[in-house]
Amino acid sequence: MSKKIVVIGAVAAGPKAACRLKRLQPDWEITLVDQDSLISYGGCGIPYYVSGDVSDESELRATSFHVVRDPAFFNNAKGVQVMTRTRALAIDRQAKKVRVENLDTGDQHDLAYDQLMLATGARPFELPIPGADLDGVFTIANLHKAIEIRKRISQGKVSRAVVIGGGAIGIEMAEALTDLWGVETSLLELEPQLLPCIVDWPFAAMLKQHLMEKNVSVYTGESAMHLIDDGQGKVIGVQTGLRRLEADLVIMAVGVRPRSELAREAGLAVTPWGGIKVNQRLQTNDPDIYAAGDCIATTSLVTGRDTYAPLGSLANREGRIVADNMAGIPAMFKGVCGSFIMKAFDRCIAATGISYEAAQFEGFDADYALTSPPDRAHFFPEQAVVILQLVFDRRSRRVLGLQAFGMMNDSISARVDAAAALIAKGGTIEDFATVEMAYAPPFSSAIDSINAAAYVAENLCDHRLRRIDLDHFLRWMNDMDREPDWAILDIRHPLEAAPYVEKFGADKWVALQYEQVRARQGELPTGKTWIIVCNAGTRSYEVQVFLDHLGKTDSMVLCGGLNVISRLGVDWFST
Amino acid sequence: MSKKIVVIGAVAAGPKAACRLKRLQPDWEITLVDQDSLISYGGCGIPYYVSGDVSDESELRATSFHVVRDPAFFNNAKGVQVMTRTRALAIDRQAKKVRVENLDTGDQHDLAYDQLMLATGARPFELPIPGADLDGVFTIANLHKAIEIRKRISQGKVSRAVVIGGGAIGIEMAEALTDLWGVETSLLELEPQLLPCIVDWPFAAMLKQHLMEKNVSVYTGESAMHLIDDGQGKVIGVQTGLRRLEADLVIMAVGVRPRSELAREAGLAVTPWGGIKVNQRLQTNDPDIYAAGDCIATTSLVTGRDTYAPLGSLANREGRIVADNMAGIPAMFKGVCGSFIMKAFDRCIAATGISYEAAQFEGFDADYALTSPPDRAHFFPEQAVVILQLVFDRRSRRVLGLQAFGMMNDSISARVDAAAALIAKGGTIEDFATVEMAYAPPFSSAIDSINAAAYVAENLCDHRLRRIDLDHFLRWMNDMDREPDWAILDIRHPLEAAPYVEKFGADKWVALQYEQVRARQGELPTGKTWIIVCNAGTRSYEVQVFLDHLGKTDSMVLCGGLNVISRLGVDWFST
Repeated sequence: MSKKIVVIGAVAAGPKAACRLKRLQPDWEITLVDQDSLISYGGCGIPYYVSGDVSDESELRATSFHVVRDPAFFNNAKGVQVMTRTRALAIDRQAKKVRVENLDTGDQHDLAYDQLMLATGARPFELPIPGADLDGVFTIANLHKAIEIRKRISQGKVSRAVVIGGGAIGIEMAEALTDLWGVETSLLELEPQLLPCIVDWPFAAMLKQHLMEKNVSVYTGESAMHLIDDGQGKVIGVQTGLRRLEADLVIMAVGVRPRSELAREAGLAVTPWGGIKVNQRLQTNDPDIYAAGDCIATTSLVTGRDTYAPLGSLANREGRIVADNMAGIPAMFKGVCGSFIMKAFDRCIAATGISYEAAQFEGFDADYALTSPPDRAHFFPEQAVVILQLVFDRRSRRVLGLQAFGMMNDSISARVDAAAALIAKGGTIEDFATVEMAYAPPFSSAIDSINAAAYVAENLCDHRLRRIDLDHFLRWMNDMDREPDWAILDIRHPLEAAPYVEKFGADKWVALQYEQVRARQGELPTGKTWIIVCNAGTRSYEVQVFLDHLGKTDSMVLCGGLNVISRLGVDWFST
Repeated sequence: MSKKIVVIGAVAAGPKAACRLKRLQPDWEITLVDQDSLISYGGCGIPYYVSGDVSDESELRATSFHVVRDPAFFNNAKGVQVMTRTRALAIDRQAKKVRVENLDTGDQHDLAYDQLMLATGARPFELPIPGADLDGVFTIANLHKAIEIRKRISQGKVSRAVVIGGGAIGIEMAEALTDLWGVETSLLELEPQLLPCIVDWPFAAMLKQHLMEKNVSVYTGESAMHLIDDGQGKVIGVQTGLRRLEADLVIMAVGVRPRSELAREAGLAVTPWGGIKVNQRLQTNDPDIYAAGDCIATTSLVTGRDTYAPLGSLANREGRIVADNMAGIPAMFKGVCGSFIMKAFDRCIAATGISYEAAQFEGFDADYALTSPPDRAHFFPEQAVVILQLVFDRRSRRVLGLQAFGMMNDSISARVDAAAALIAKGGTIEDFATVEMAYAPPFSSAIDSINAAAYVAENLCDHRLRRIDLDHFLRWMNDMDREPDWAILDIRHPLEAAPYVEKFGADKWVALQYEQVRARQGELPTGKTWIIVCNAGTRSYEVQVFLDHLGKTDSMVLCGGLNVISRLGVDWFST
């Protein structure tokens, strides 16, 4: 028997569900409703449209075979009816109908449904600060805003911009403005680091350093107090707590919130932060109403708790699962690891699972292995260092997350994607130590970087490796008198160590090459607590084991080594 | 109490085990024995050394911090004794000692052990054909051979070469010779396809086509009968069953065999094909003797049966596990998926798990989903088509393998590595449908290529998608009279379809654009069995579902579409 299906929201989850369902149940009558005129677009591509990498906005709305996904396309090719510029006003769950309004005519009418899907998405959060409504201030709410931003830039109206918000979209927009248009761009983030809650501070610091090298002025721990008016309603700058930044364009990218008013008003269960609650079949507490995409609360596969993961990729997968369940094919969406990846100029930064900071907050017996291996065979010409951090629970030895920062290529994808597959299955350090990464010198190391990170995690768990935390190390480097007995044991090549010995003095920075430690350890001054450093941290670990064996058991290893330090933008030599 | 450990073989597994064990048990006396003078090298890097990408052979023997791993290095830095040019002659398991011979002096003596490790590696198989011992004929047995090959090339002594063996090493060597040295190179493979037993024939055919485009002359299904002598003991050519190929250099890369004579003679269990049998702790049937690396039989995580996986990456992981177990830390090596990846000029080809052909042979209810999605967001400028095939068992819905062919970058690594992580855990099609691949347009599609392949697999399993096999399709294209009722329904853009309609005639090749099928299906001639084609196969599936709904249930979809056909080197237009 034919059923009537109404889907509210036609960007990602909605169209995916509608089209899949029409294939599963060709007799059913499926209606997609959206308040916008532009639908079914790749919102994640907006920064690449603004930058000009994607030449026309219609490409974000086109299929891979270059046909624009407009209402006619859905009707003709998919057999799905689309009502654009149509806002859903209210759901009558008793009568099973949705009240909608045509935004052009103001006409209202009811759409009856047998099953309803909410794919209402998210809306950008707007900072409640004076001037937020000035001309020239944008959120990245939809394609229309993106089109307007690019128009202004391409007309030469923008020479300075401020992006408020150091999350992924803010950073991508800052790159788009700087890299391709040469707009002098500042990036403001209220929190002390970029990508807060996504990566741990060293990764954020490496990213910040790269952005600064690429001429983005990054201000972290600094908030926008108000936007400055030219007296005629146009923005000319941003006043922060510390400075005034001139700007012809201000982009607010301070996060998004689930669009769930319709659900809440219909009496559906919603989390305190607005995510529509769904079960693993993506049903709300009304079994005839499903929800998917940026409007729902999903489950973290790491913590087991509610989380928010507004991503087009998840929306699509969820949409398909809604269609299956509506059609009578049982399908489940178990939750998310929270995989994240982005390009930032010449670098890639990515994460999956949870950060060390989050793991501590969640009450895990959290620890981390910070490493800096090559991203492919170290003898292969194109190899480069990648910074990798595995976060784990010492008690259960379960891996909780992985973070990576390296060159802009797909090598980090491989590590993060393999890690997510394992984390979703409750993978342990031992699973990571043996996971089979396809090996050939142009792609990976014989001991893959995630195997190697797991080895470090094992050595930490089993008390074979004692680390000094990076922040602890940096604080001491800034004030060595805090721990007068501490000294660096630099086991790199003497030529690498020499400038450090000269800078810090031979009592604080002792050079003894790795290969000679066994033979010459007797020459080391006594009474020191050694902080062992090398480039990656692996040789340092070996030397620590050796010193331990001699009974000198108070040394500490700088995990990740100077490869990490050099990427943080720490400058020990300029003063 | 200190123990004496002897490790036979010092290339990958042996040194890894020795060094790890010395860290775990610094008091133990560890001796590495190898018959070669050059040890601890990255054998997988040999093709890149021959090509010149790696400038000096010592780089293959160097650490990431550029120190050569010679016996002095192992002694000084690692505390491990190394005896090179020393051959292990026999193991006396009762007395727990190994008889060794110094190959320079001929002196023999015994090494006592508490625990012994066999890391004797593999030897290249030498074809038993006349002329195999001529000057100019090489196997890739060790670094010495590689050094000699490169010397001859760089001295201008090689203008034509024949590589016998179309496995990974043979292909890599053919690339090295052709690409960087301009040597006119032929590649001979006895089996009907390249990479036999590793990938299914369409993937081998795409690879062959690319090699031919890059000026490697590839002859499959053709064997070397004998090598031709210049009358003075130097090779000048290869006589195959079909032709004579001139050559100044012949490389035999016809596979390797475990070097297990020592084990067998000591009464240790060995498979019929020579792999030393080990348990999950990598112990042989003598609990004081471990074995790892290219000399052992390991377990396929897909079939549960013995398999052979001679790879430096696995050898390293196994070596560490031997060390842990010897030191009293329980550690297990459960087996391999069989992940494989290689660069071939501008392309990457990879596989994990087993092929469709192997899955049928193993008795699975085998099926496959062949797809050709973009490797990143289809609107992102650098996107390119990747050909992906998921192999699965219809009954259990377990995924058995994944194969991929695409551009030379790391994007295929990500899919194969995530797949291997899931396959090792018994992952099903549904696991692949929801596996979380990190998404941003520069890295992936909103619906990742492996999610999409799983969707196709689901549709096949659940009888929503009916496919025509590629070989069946190609046979029919060569002789359309075999099935006079069959006709192509080409749903691509009319401009794409036009040359095909002209070539094959409007009764055999009918063009009706995808977006117009619903409206104009009534115009289709009746009495035809439609083979629906598009570029990737996804639109074809939608049209099949629609035709089914109309009761026309005999259509077939060309999965992977013309994207696959165009890469096979099929030429329908030249005649």
